Amino acid sequence: MPYELYYWPSIPGRGELIRLALEECGAEYVDVARASEQGGMEAMMRLIGDPTTAHRPFAPPVLRADRLLIAQTANILRYLGARHGLAPREEAGELWTQQLQLTLADLLAEVHDTHHPIASGLYYEDQKSEARRRTGDFLASRLPKYLTYFESVLERNPDGDRHLSGGSLTYADLSMFQTIAGLRYAFPQAMQGLAARIPRLLALHDLVRERPRIAAYLGSPRWLPFNEQGIFRHYPELDKS
Amino acid sequence: MPYELYYWPSIPGRGELIRLALEECGAEYVDVARASEQGGMEAMMRLIGDPTTAHRPFAPPVLRADRLLIAQTANILRYLGARHGLAPREEAGELWTQQLQLTLADLLAEVHDTHHPIASGLYYEDQKSEARRRTGDFLASRLPKYLTYFESVLERNPDGDRHLSGGSLTYADLSMFQTIAGLRYAFPQAMQGLAARIPRLLALHDLVRERPRIAAYLGSPRWLPFNEQGIFRHYPELDKS
Repeated sequence: MPYELYYWPSIPGRGELIRLALEECGAEYVDVARASEQGGMEAMMRLIGDPTTAHRPFAPPVLRADRLLIAQTANILRYLGARHGLAPREEAGELWTQQLQLTLADLLAEVHDTHHPIASGLYYEDQKSEARRRTGDFLASRLPKYLTYFESVLERNPDGDRHLSGGSLTYADLSMFQTIAGLRYAFPQAMQGLAARIPRLLALHDLVRERPRIAAYLGSPRWLPFNEQGIFRHYPELDKS
Repeated sequence: MPYELYYWPSIPGRGELIRLALEECGAEYVDVARASEQGGMEAMMRLIGDPTTAHRPFAPPVLRADRLLIAQTANILRYLGARHGLAPREEAGELWTQQLQLTLADLLAEVHDTHHPIASGLYYEDQKSEARRRTGDFLASRLPKYLTYFESVLERNPDGDRHLSGGSLTYADLSMFQTIAGLRYAFPQAMQGLAARIPRLLALHDLVRERPRIAAYLGSPRWLPFNEQGIFRHYPELDKS
């Protein structure tokens, strides 16, 4: 049975971190909310909204894997990583990879809040001045802190500086690819200013982009470009000048 | 060798979720930043700040368990849960418990941002009007959504409505205890207004509080009360009137 991914159909968002893992390991999957013959959005809303669903998730992304229903991006990736060799098997490496993923999740939440510092239920236009203030702090302080941290993780990896954890590709590397791509989309000027401090992260981005299955995916209609409904939004007034 | 917990010494914060798990399973541990003979805060800052630390964490809490150094609250709890019987052993239950914990982590991040919607590096006083706006949305929309979700998780648990996952106590139950206690501290009026909709969550809070080891811990000098430096802060002007 193919995996079933449930995620908002029009944004890459957190669902993209799952898609990248599924694509990299060549897994068969249905992107349910984008597949009208699978019930589309209605099927997803039923899954989330029906209180009788066993292990009902709070929010997408959600992965159905045979009899399992799994939510929370890092949790899904941990499951896929163990099943498809996208994470070290030994305990220390497994915990470390998940720790890095959860730190990336914290960064993504902060990226989201740059344009939605007051309420995710309000439009950006209704919290624009607060967004400017929050983004100013994010670009001056938080983003450099996160990225130089991850750069030092690569630099200090005893198995080499091409991967975040261990000597081969993990789900954390795939998520880092999407994060770097998204940050460049949202904040091109700020990322330009940071580039010299994060050469290994940028090399990791390129390494992932060129993996055969990822490259094929990025050129396929399954891939969703960034837009102004997702986590990474390009509002020029928020980018550093 | 006892566990070593590294966390800010003056707030319960996320470190408290680890302490509750360690206390419940009767584990020996040192709260390093609060123990001057273990090097106190200096030892913690060295751990976080020294780039040569293997598997260096981005932020506390951090747990040292023999040769392992683990960060990210949910990740630490997953490790402790498996080792001390604070989570189901079978895959579906293990993933579900961690999923609930990660959803609780999302809630905690939103609670933090009620008083710090612009920048964690600024004082509350410097973002007070934004805090009022964000908290308004949080109490009207996000908090009821999270709490009624968790209430329905208890209600639909096939093993009984006393625990979030399975038929016995897990680390997610312990974290929910702290979350309910913290929400009552920070937003007594709003929580009063929600009480009738979350009877099972309130019963779970009481059940955890009365467990012998937790009750002993809460009465000991090891326990840290809530204050206005942590995640849960009581600013009367933010609470619902």
